[in-house]
Amino acid sequence: MRVLGIDPGIAIAGFGFVDKVGNKLVPVQYGAIQTEAHTPQETRILQIYDSACALLDRYKPDAMAVEKLFFNRNVTTAFAVGQARGVIILAAAQRGVPIAEYTPLQVKQAVVGYGKAEKRQVQEMVKMFLKLSVVPKPDDVADALAVAICHAHSAVLVNKINGVLGK
Amino acid sequence: MRVLGIDPGIAIAGFGFVDKVGNKLVPVQYGAIQTEAHTPQETRILQIYDSACALLDRYKPDAMAVEKLFFNRNVTTAFAVGQARGVIILAAAQRGVPIAEYTPLQVKQAVVGYGKAEKRQVQEMVKMFLKLSVVPKPDDVADALAVAICHAHSAVLVNKINGVLGK
Repeated sequence: MRVLGIDPGIAIAGFGFVDKVGNKLVPVQYGAIQTEAHTPQETRILQIYDSACALLDRYKPDAMAVEKLFFNRNVTTAFAVGQARGVIILAAAQRGVPIAEYTPLQVKQAVVGYGKAEKRQVQEMVKMFLKLSVVPKPDDVADALAVAICHAHSAVLVNKINGVLGK
Repeated sequence: MRVLGIDPGIAIAGFGFVDKVGNKLVPVQYGAIQTEAHTPQETRILQIYDSACALLDRYKPDAMAVEKLFFNRNVTTAFAVGQARGVIILAAAQRGVPIAEYTPLQVKQAVVGYGKAEKRQVQEMVKMFLKLSVVPKPDDVADALAVAICHAHSAVLVNKINGVLGK
């Protein structure tokens, strides 16, 4: 199963493709879609959408995972992030890629095992799970990989439950 | 000149096409893109995008106008509205339709002549400018027409200034 994790943003949208092979998680590709400040908003939105389409077409994930809600920032930021998130979700929906959403609490629980984990702990666990030599930068990339790992773990759990239930 | 005004939202996105013919404003088509609650978010986003594409392709506006910032609501709402706004802006950008943004203050100034006008006054002026027999409902439709009128008026002003400057 290949999962695409997304940390949306208008200036930087982190992405991370992770394969679940048996019980292992293998990083396939990760990075950030970046758009330039002082560029018209519609140009940035178009660039994010086009980049998301290109990534989805190239790496063909079985699922996309994004954080569910948007906390601790202001209305203007939420509005801008919402716009970026909207076009990335659109790109996935147009390709029939199922979209899963997780709260930051769920992501931390799944990655660190502790819902109040600090950002730094999440990043270190991402590095460990994916056997990376360094924590991916910028933070948006590590966050995208974290939500991908969260989904991969949750999918394992769903499979296990389905196994117990004989599904 | 044909202007599309948009009042974005995930449940209801108001739209209004207005033609500026000489000094007159003529309503071409207006209404709301509506999506059902309890439908997956990605389905709603896809529906909004597809409807916006269909409207843009059918009525071929010369410009699209939307409110610039999002005031007086909470972060969760801003986030959802941002997602809807993002895919509508994408649809316009893909077609090369220029996008203009106005603050609520600018819209009120342009439509009522008073930046602190009440919603009801804006709606009455929309009805009057477009020679409608009733105020369009829901409010999102009247708001979409208001931002279209605002752009049509501003375009007149820009043309007049350009005329004075000999452009």
